[in-house]
Amino acid sequence: MAMQMADIHYIGMRNEQAACYAAQAMGYLTGKPAACLVVSGPGLLHTFGGLANAQINCWPVLVIGGSAPQDHEGIGGFQECNQVELARPYCKYAARPPTIPLIPMHVEKAVRLTKNGRPGAAYLDFPANILSGRVEESSVSPYYGPTPPPLIYPNPSDIQTAVDLITQASRPLVIVGKGAAYARAEATVRDLIDSTNLPFLATPMGKGVVPDASPKCVQPARSTALQKADVVLLLGARLNWILHFGRPPRYSPDAKVIQIDLSAEELNTSVKSAVAIQSDLRVAVEQIVAGLKKRNFTYSSQNEWWQVLERKCQDNRRTVQAMAADESVPLNYYTVFHNLYQHLPDNCIIVSEGANTMDIGRTMLFNNQPRNRLDAGTFGTMGVGPGFAIAAALYCRHHEPTKRVICVEGDSAFGFSGMEIETMVRYKLPIIIVVVNNSGIYTGMEPEAFKNLRDSTELEDIAKM
Amino acid sequence: MAMQMADIHYIGMRNEQAACYAAQAMGYLTGKPAACLVVSGPGLLHTFGGLANAQINCWPVLVIGGSAPQDHEGIGGFQECNQVELARPYCKYAARPPTIPLIPMHVEKAVRLTKNGRPGAAYLDFPANILSGRVEESSVSPYYGPTPPPLIYPNPSDIQTAVDLITQASRPLVIVGKGAAYARAEATVRDLIDSTNLPFLATPMGKGVVPDASPKCVQPARSTALQKADVVLLLGARLNWILHFGRPPRYSPDAKVIQIDLSAEELNTSVKSAVAIQSDLRVAVEQIVAGLKKRNFTYSSQNEWWQVLERKCQDNRRTVQAMAADESVPLNYYTVFHNLYQHLPDNCIIVSEGANTMDIGRTMLFNNQPRNRLDAGTFGTMGVGPGFAIAAALYCRHHEPTKRVICVEGDSAFGFSGMEIETMVRYKLPIIIVVVNNSGIYTGMEPEAFKNLRDSTELEDIAKM
Amino acid sequence: MAMQMADIHYIGMRNEQAACYAAQAMGYLTGKPAACLVVSGPGLLHTFGGLANAQINCWPVLVIGGSAPQDHEGIGGFQECNQVELARPYCKYAARPPTIPLIPMHVEKAVRLTKNGRPGAAYLDFPANILSGRVEESSVSPYYGPTPPPLIYPNPSDIQTAVDLITQASRPLVIVGKGAAYARAEATVRDLIDSTNLPFLATPMGKGVVPDASPKCVQPARSTALQKADVVLLLGARLNWILHFGRPPRYSPDAKVIQIDLSAEELNTSVKSAVAIQSDLRVAVEQIVAGLKKRNFTYSSQNEWWQVLERKCQDNRRTVQAMAADESVPLNYYTVFHNLYQHLPDNCIIVSEGANTMDIGRTMLFNNQPRNRLDAGTFGTMGVGPGFAIAAALYCRHHEPTKRVICVEGDSAFGFSGMEIETMVRYKLPIIIVVVNNSGIYTGMEPEAFKNLRDSTELEDIAKM
Amino acid sequence: MAMQMADIHYIGMRNEQAACYAAQAMGYLTGKPAACLVVSGPGLLHTFGGLANAQINCWPVLVIGGSAPQDHEGIGGFQECNQVELARPYCKYAARPPTIPLIPMHVEKAVRLTKNGRPGAAYLDFPANILSGRVEESSVSPYYGPTPPPLIYPNPSDIQTAVDLITQASRPLVIVGKGAAYARAEATVRDLIDSTNLPFLATPMGKGVVPDASPKCVQPARSTALQKADVVLLLGARLNWILHFGRPPRYSPDAKVIQIDLSAEELNTSVKSAVAIQSDLRVAVEQIVAGLKKRNFTYSSQNEWWQVLERKCQDNRRTVQAMAADESVPLNYYTVFHNLYQHLPDNCIIVSEGANTMDIGRTMLFNNQPRNRLDAGTFGTMGVGPGFAIAAALYCRHHEPTKRVICVEGDSAFGFSGMEIETMVRYKLPIIIVVVNNSGIYTGMEPEAFKNLRDSTELEDIAKM
Repeated sequence: MAMQMADIHYIGMRNEQAACYAAQAMGYLTGKPAACLVVSGPGLLHTFGGLANAQINCWPVLVIGGSAPQDHEGIGGFQECNQVELARPYCKYAARPPTIPLIPMHVEKAVRLTKNGRPGAAYLDFPANILSGRVEESSVSPYYGPTPPPLIYPNPSDIQTAVDLITQASRPLVIVGKGAAYARAEATVRDLIDSTNLPFLATPMGKGVVPDASPKCVQPARSTALQKADVVLLLGARLNWILHFGRPPRYSPDAKVIQIDLSAEELNTSVKSAVAIQSDLRVAVEQIVAGLKKRNFTYSSQNEWWQVLERKCQDNRRTVQAMAADESVPLNYYTVFHNLYQHLPDNCIIVSEGANTMDIGRTMLFNNQPRNRLDAGTFGTMGVGPGFAIAAALYCRHHEPTKRVICVEGDSAFGFSGMEIETMVRYKLPIIIVVVNNSGIYTGMEPEAFKNLRDSTELEDIAKM
Repeated sequence: MAMQMADIHYIGMRNEQAACYAAQAMGYLTGKPAACLVVSGPGLLHTFGGLANAQINCWPVLVIGGSAPQDHEGIGGFQECNQVELARPYCKYAARPPTIPLIPMHVEKAVRLTKNGRPGAAYLDFPANILSGRVEESSVSPYYGPTPPPLIYPNPSDIQTAVDLITQASRPLVIVGKGAAYARAEATVRDLIDSTNLPFLATPMGKGVVPDASPKCVQPARSTALQKADVVLLLGARLNWILHFGRPPRYSPDAKVIQIDLSAEELNTSVKSAVAIQSDLRVAVEQIVAGLKKRNFTYSSQNEWWQVLERKCQDNRRTVQAMAADESVPLNYYTVFHNLYQHLPDNCIIVSEGANTMDIGRTMLFNNQPRNRLDAGTFGTMGVGPGFAIAAALYCRHHEPTKRVICVEGDSAFGFSGMEIETMVRYKLPIIIVVVNNSGIYTGMEPEAFKNLRDSTELEDIAKM
Repeated sequence: MAMQMADIHYIGMRNEQAACYAAQAMGYLTGKPAACLVVSGPGLLHTFGGLANAQINCWPVLVIGGSAPQDHEGIGGFQECNQVELARPYCKYAARPPTIPLIPMHVEKAVRLTKNGRPGAAYLDFPANILSGRVEESSVSPYYGPTPPPLIYPNPSDIQTAVDLITQASRPLVIVGKGAAYARAEATVRDLIDSTNLPFLATPMGKGVVPDASPKCVQPARSTALQKADVVLLLGARLNWILHFGRPPRYSPDAKVIQIDLSAEELNTSVKSAVAIQSDLRVAVEQIVAGLKKRNFTYSSQNEWWQVLERKCQDNRRTVQAMAADESVPLNYYTVFHNLYQHLPDNCIIVSEGANTMDIGRTMLFNNQPRNRLDAGTFGTMGVGPGFAIAAALYCRHHEPTKRVICVEGDSAFGFSGMEIETMVRYKLPIIIVVVNNSGIYTGMEPEAFKNLRDSTELEDIAKM
Repeated sequence: MAMQMADIHYIGMRNEQAACYAAQAMGYLTGKPAACLVVSGPGLLHTFGGLANAQINCWPVLVIGGSAPQDHEGIGGFQECNQVELARPYCKYAARPPTIPLIPMHVEKAVRLTKNGRPGAAYLDFPANILSGRVEESSVSPYYGPTPPPLIYPNPSDIQTAVDLITQASRPLVIVGKGAAYARAEATVRDLIDSTNLPFLATPMGKGVVPDASPKCVQPARSTALQKADVVLLLGARLNWILHFGRPPRYSPDAKVIQIDLSAEELNTSVKSAVAIQSDLRVAVEQIVAGLKKRNFTYSSQNEWWQVLERKCQDNRRTVQAMAADESVPLNYYTVFHNLYQHLPDNCIIVSEGANTMDIGRTMLFNNQPRNRLDAGTFGTMGVGPGFAIAAALYCRHHEPTKRVICVEGDSAFGFSGMEIETMVRYKLPIIIVVVNNSGIYTGMEPEAFKNLRDSTELEDIAKM
């Protein structure tokens, strides 16, 4: 087959788990699915955490797996298992091309489905006999080439309702999700914030769509902002556990949500939105901005709501500054991150995972550009850090060569995929890794603790906590 | 609940993947399922390679996972996914206890099913609200306690047929699988070999049931032995990829197979056995031995078949000795393993994974006791080494304190779970790891290689090979 | 719970299979999911053909199943099986509410997902202990009420491209699918056809969106129309087996497809569309009509393409008329349907299934109103007829009391669910059933045919053809 | 391919649902799996109730399905769906032979797995292109021919324990399950009962292994027998819902269960057995009988337990006789079945389904030969009757030509598959069907009942109760 390929940056990693995390980060950064190639059986199964993470983060990724030759199936072939079936629950598309001439059809469909609608994961399975087969170029169908994902527009009357709600709001709040980042809607969302003076929050990977450093960012007053807002404009974010499901007591029972999402099925989940708009994020925000500008809407900083939020922000900033100035040993997180942040380049990609390390780091390490933060995400996956960092460094090398990658890891989190440091070294990827030694790993309960329980048992325990 | 527990050795590992490998190795070594505790979502998904490995190796293991509280299901709960459903394909039993009083019933069933019949994996799911719930002790059913797995006996007429076939064989061969090791049938199988003088081979983890050092071991003549045998006595081994499916050209088309297996479904797979015996391995071999002794059967070393096999063995040993004496740098595998073996204690547990490292190491590093070899196994899983070694060391600490653990890793294989060295250190586990630097990891294709292909593409590639 | 319900028309059917078909037809006719209540175990499994049929036809339906009490799970409860898991592959949503207060949340989500995005099926599972439980009304969340599905608009530049392609086409063709019927887009699609004079075809259940009797309907020239068209405007139809995948030799290799579909994932399947528009069908067609009107576009009947199509249509009509006039016995299909059609009310609902009976009946029995044809559909399901007819009659009784239901069945097809005649009688549903006795059922091969094969066998055969 | 086949009795049925029920009944009657051939998509899905029923009843059956040609997969092929994956949860083996030469391997494995170990269901999938392909006979492997299932023997020390328990029992009870019927263990089980004078009960399809007319049958004292027994000898029956889980209050908390089952996984389910024996049923019972004879054990009719049971039996028989003599209209069940039974030939096959019809009919219609009763079974499946009856009649025609088939149906049950009467007529199968009109089907709630609820709703309800 004469498939034209380019921009292919091939990299050999240590564990399929990390490889799948790397591929999906590349898909998020570029907007095109990267492929993760794995061997059969356990090779594929090791990616299921990654496939699920991609699917739940709504990031495009394609896993390609080898599999046992078909005449070994059913009799104990090498690493034989029902790979397509097992991968299917994590995928928008999973298939085994049954013959060589049908490979392009399945590749095209797999790639297309990772991108069309809500992005996600796909799996393609290649038995050894198909992989090593040959076919006349002429027998390959000419139908298959890339197509762009569709762009959907919002219902204008819903936009009108949204504009009405915003203009009438007493305590409006914008929440920017990673859907806005994936949609490359940064210019539009910044225009919204700049032209209206609305306060905003970002979800972890929504950070940087509008700069964290923006004075409109009320992250330090997050709890108050969520709890008191009367109108919430939700831009490509989901009211899931990260946003406390949009429900009391974390939100006002009367809060009106203006929900904009690409997925029809996401609308009105968790709470009933005041207006639920299925649309490309950028287009919907453009139309809302246009509607607000038409009405010359700005939300004055003199409003009581802004006063409340700013006061909270200042209080919070003062507290943090005090902690960050405390240099007693062992250092607290704030001091660590405060000092770390002083040394970071202005616009680096920050990869992070852990518990406190990730959570506090998120508030202390600003992102001022979109898609510059990669972390444990919606699925809260530990082990993503090194793979994400490798993808980010590879992305920078080829697309933004002056940008640096910083990887901030909790010490427990680092234990999942730390071996990938070898990969970084092998490919000379300029990644800075900071591991926060916060005793996230403990030594387990000592056998003595169980002494008085000793009698009879069926179990010996091994745990990953 | 007043569950009496003892002999619990709790250990906190770095990655669920490795933790699940550790737990199943413990299950194999002790004959009782160890439990692997994992967090929800990705924590569970990271064990699926391990669950499948246990299932395919027929080793007992129980994975216990936390999951999102049930009132967060359907609205984007933390790490929410359909855990029981996703685990089911890898398990003999998978369930979520619906209420606290029903927990003992599901625990008993899960543990029982890991052991009864063909051993395997089980999964139990505990939503946060169930985990943190409380219940009166009196509401818990008294029905549930451990039961031993059943012991099945063979059909006597099949034993008769087997004895007839063995006594009439011109070129008999015994193959000892890890089923014989799991069945703790070593005394009986050794009696068979010792009393009959039959030549034998072992599968990788069947090694040591009869000592590799036995003069009846024809491992150096493996290809000839398989190809020329006219009667094959298959003891708890499967005619899968490891044994070339029992088919020509690797076997004689007229070879008669005497198959002994615990699983009815395994009988006559791949080839039609001359006699297919479902039985506890030990019992069936005892009865065969009794039958052969009754006939005063021994297979004379003067037989042509023994002559052929011994010649082949000697030839092979000479070749290997020559290679093992070659100290030119870089050292070849044989020299490495020859010298390594000189330093090994007589009966240590050898853990190994890799490609050539594992395959050649298997022939050079003898096992003279059963269950003293743990490797990539039937599923050919990479990444098992450190977890297996940790389990082995923990097992030795508590059950065979003088035994040592050696872990021989290919350099690529080591990359999967190498971080678990930290676990070994943390728990002061006396494991010796040897990594064979054979350039198993390469640097990937350089972008230059793709230069003339550059045009348009949908993919960026990231691979785990 | 104080759930306000109305318009509930409860009907007790004979087989869950037929009940599920009935519920989904009601969903299609009303645009709101009907619920199909079934007993546990086999009761649910009998609906899977129906759930799949609904999912593939993109019709909303909700199946509600009882299940064994949770304390009987794992020990052989009555009709115990993993109902939610087993139903999931056929559903957009499948869940078991874990507690009584969470029932409304899951009901709301299930109903919403049957309608939002591409419509489809949902399943809810109620264990006996949940079904019979009680709860304080105050503990039930107030969040859950119905929400309308979102309305998405097309990308204006795609509409522009579509308008350009239509105006430039030499041999344009409109294909109307059942997506146009489900979208209630009949007024708009008729406006398109009427204002442009474009020739059109309908898929089986797209019939009647524009009347079959319209002079613009080129159904009698279907093969030519598909094969020669240079621009195909595809309205809510899929280029699947019914439309010969949109590929040569049934289509011109140069045909340009303007695809309008609600589902992003459906775009560019099978062939690459010239322009692929994700949009509510009605909105997209309205904008295309507006664009064409702005350009004063009409497609003249003097065009050679219209001449070709009309000639084909006339030829075909003549042939059919000749056949329909042939009253020799046994009657041919055309005579039967010609005479039947003379007796049909002008706008009745026609339900049909079978092979030739359905296919030829489709061409002879006109539909001049939308959603007035229900047949084996995209999934080609046999057994749907009586259930569809029952739903249609019930729908008419409550929504269009003057409309009649005619059910035209092949004699084999009738054998699947013919028992539901009893249901029709029990509820006094005014349905006319016509069974075409065309020897669709045969007597099977006689044992004599196998005489010379008799030797040994493992199988006795029972078949449903 | 030159596959030798014989005894093939092909029959064309009306609905795949009923066809699958017929095939599995044939498998139970003959001990060899019958094959059920179905069309693709819905044709296969309609068998899932049947596959599950076979799996749960532990009956061998093979479903063979056609499927869309492989080059139509992924683009909307005719009745395309993931057939193998969807069938897998109901099967011991499910596969699609990937090439024509591999068909025999998969057929052999499918047939073998339906019979080896616990019997069950298998599915094989044949895409149109494979079905219509051709291959040289020489390319087909010679390996595949039928093999008998293995025969496993019990652990002698468990038999000893069982014998001890029986001889020491004060209130012993034998329960005969359909596993004893499937194992063709009737001669041995009758020997057990005859030689020991032990009282016995039968599960519904265990009836006839020992004649219902035997004076040792304590069916009329069933509740007392279960509740008071101190030792229960469970022969191929499961302690599931049919046997009230073997738990108090339906059993004594101190009852000791001697469990004999073919499946290791079934042992100790629901209650912990006093001794749990995995064995071929016939062999284990033979050994128990031999052990008891060796001790000259008989259980005297003078024992108080026999007195209690006989008194209960007589009381119950008197009550039933009184009811059976009551000829007031509408007739009660006992009168109906009493009179029906007078007209039944001595050893006919009785097929039955329904609620009261089946339950009361079971007590009134005796079976005096094994495998002469077929009913809703362990899965409680409605709709099995006509298919079972067809299989039984076909079985009798070819294997026991003088035996008749009687099918006793509740009126609701009859509604599921009543259309298969046409099949019976077409093949001139001499089946007598009795439908008990007990108003099992009702007319549903009238819309009036909902009047005061009318407000707004999302649902229209259609139910199969």
